[in-house]
Amino acid sequence: MPSARPPALPGDPVSAIRTPALIVDLDAFEANIARMRAFVQDSGLRLRAHAKTHKSADIARIQMRDGGACGVCCQKVSEAEALVEAGVTDILVSNEITGTARAEALARLAERARIGVCVDSLEGVAELAAATAHHDTELSVLVEVDVGAGRCGVAPGAAAVPLARAIAAAPGLIFGGLQAYQGSLQHIADPAARAAAAKAAAQATRDTLKALHAEGFDCATVGGAGTGSFRLDSGLGQVNELQCGSYIFMDADYDRIEEIGGGRPGGMENALFILTEVMSTAVPGKAVCDAGLKAMSLDSGLPRLDAEGLSYLVASDEHGEIADPDDRLARGDRLRLVPGHCDPTCNLYDHYVAVRGDTVEAIWPVTARGCLW
Amino acid sequence: MPSARPPALPGDPVSAIRTPALIVDLDAFEANIARMRAFVQDSGLRLRAHAKTHKSADIARIQMRDGGACGVCCQKVSEAEALVEAGVTDILVSNEITGTARAEALARLAERARIGVCVDSLEGVAELAAATAHHDTELSVLVEVDVGAGRCGVAPGAAAVPLARAIAAAPGLIFGGLQAYQGSLQHIADPAARAAAAKAAAQATRDTLKALHAEGFDCATVGGAGTGSFRLDSGLGQVNELQCGSYIFMDADYDRIEEIGGGRPGGMENALFILTEVMSTAVPGKAVCDAGLKAMSLDSGLPRLDAEGLSYLVASDEHGEIADPDDRLARGDRLRLVPGHCDPTCNLYDHYVAVRGDTVEAIWPVTARGCLW
Repeated sequence: MPSARPPALPGDPVSAIRTPALIVDLDAFEANIARMRAFVQDSGLRLRAHAKTHKSADIARIQMRDGGACGVCCQKVSEAEALVEAGVTDILVSNEITGTARAEALARLAERARIGVCVDSLEGVAELAAATAHHDTELSVLVEVDVGAGRCGVAPGAAAVPLARAIAAAPGLIFGGLQAYQGSLQHIADPAARAAAAKAAAQATRDTLKALHAEGFDCATVGGAGTGSFRLDSGLGQVNELQCGSYIFMDADYDRIEEIGGGRPGGMENALFILTEVMSTAVPGKAVCDAGLKAMSLDSGLPRLDAEGLSYLVASDEHGEIADPDDRLARGDRLRLVPGHCDPTCNLYDHYVAVRGDTVEAIWPVTARGCLW
Repeated sequence: MPSARPPALPGDPVSAIRTPALIVDLDAFEANIARMRAFVQDSGLRLRAHAKTHKSADIARIQMRDGGACGVCCQKVSEAEALVEAGVTDILVSNEITGTARAEALARLAERARIGVCVDSLEGVAELAAATAHHDTELSVLVEVDVGAGRCGVAPGAAAVPLARAIAAAPGLIFGGLQAYQGSLQHIADPAARAAAAKAAAQATRDTLKALHAEGFDCATVGGAGTGSFRLDSGLGQVNELQCGSYIFMDADYDRIEEIGGGRPGGMENALFILTEVMSTAVPGKAVCDAGLKAMSLDSGLPRLDAEGLSYLVASDEHGEIADPDDRLARGDRLRLVPGHCDPTCNLYDHYVAVRGDTVEAIWPVTARGCLW
């Protein structure tokens, strides 16, 4: 299928990239990778970078080789399958899974890589136990605790104990610790509100650790924190394995958080862009580009146009309307957009075009694109 | 890559489909296809069904074989390439294209299929003329007129004449007529406002036809109308080739239009669903399913849960939170969601799972998924 054809080849000039295309600015990307490596080295914490952001085996390898990551996280079993198939060796599915088929798939993956997963039910533990017994493999299992997001996870405190006990009792399962991610923290714009939510999450984690400790369970891993909260969460001392994903790319939603006063998390810079071309200037005061809502996810708002005095007004399926009051833009002009939300935008593309200056340096497949199972 | 593995096989029970999955209810789908065929037969108009909705060669073939369609529309050159490669023989790119590479690609496709395209600039005409001369092929070219959407297209009236003249003067180009699609019409909920906008579009089209006629140009094709406006537009007598796309599937956004009072367009029914599974019920009053914003586009709002007394509250990347005040749902339960907007939702998936009753009848690849160029 032509969708499998990459929009450029290594060595091509940027001007030859077929648009719209998903561009990684390598200088910015590598600077973000280095910033996070320095942070985890200084803090003494581990980094398990979240691959749900990029879904790319190439980027996972860079994070583990150059970026200080001990491994990566995935959210879905099929995502983990795609990355293991492409050579990634250490993955935590930072999410609950359901059903025998998914449990069997993870137990099979554990023949080829170090695999972990989360639970918040005894039924989930039983499915994993049966699958590892069937395949004679081992899975590391974290108990997810609801530390404030109100989505998945058992209540803080003693509710984690029966799950830890069931995990420890299953021969193929290793009790790995806690999943204590407060997802709604990431995008709280107000710094005081964000700090208060982080404190509450740390307290909920502490209560759970205490309840487990009283029953003889120690937690080797306490996973959590994202790009919007890793400095805060690290300072509070509960989480020991950071699960940041967006830090490599950033996006317009994180830009907006910066503007309101939280400071751009960790000094990270925009490294992900949609390269788009002007396809029509027939209507005065407007230019229409070839990147609409199939070229980026709008769930967190419109993209930001990376050009002074121009703004992206509205997206339809295949068109983006740009306000151009002085009719400066011409048919064929190229522009860069900063997507509103990096993760679901990357999931629309089959390839990253990694560029340095004016040259395409690499093409990275979006290895686990569309892996929803 | 595992993403290429379909979520089920023909003959599987629906209960065995790996979730989340994109489901076509074949009874509803075929009823929609038959309703539209009856409409075009009664009205004497042509149907050129829009393949941007489904991006599937299988569905395009069904529309042409059983659904009264003379051909299909695409929005992108690479979409047309994918469908021609899969055997579709008559395609209008109902959109402007830019640059030599795209023009060359279309001229090459014209060796294998009947191909049309739109223009709103003399530069666009020149690029197409050069490409058809180079490949010794023919393209049908429509002049796009801005009939009220204010996006692409020349102003109504005489502005179309120089473009028609340039097309007619190029040996490889055939002046095909007008593209007169009022895209913003489709989702105007108020029937009176929608009728007024349709009337204005018809008048703009009439003015343009008159200006062209005065210069000796007749328009074999006047393309336009969508699922939200085809009955209105047909009654106004300007458009002779309907370009409806969503009618085969419908979506929650069209449902909302119905509720406000416009009547569900043409009696069409929901035929497209996301099959999702409950993955966590650990937080009281809530169930969390495995379909979040990577499983459907939220640009036109949240999905509608196809179940009494339950509602989909919020989507994060891989989770959907469902209000379940009485804790009726259990881990592993399956639900159907009606996506907010069908077109960009289909573009997230590699396969349709076509089901009849409780059985999977066919797997259709999303042939042109991710074809943005």
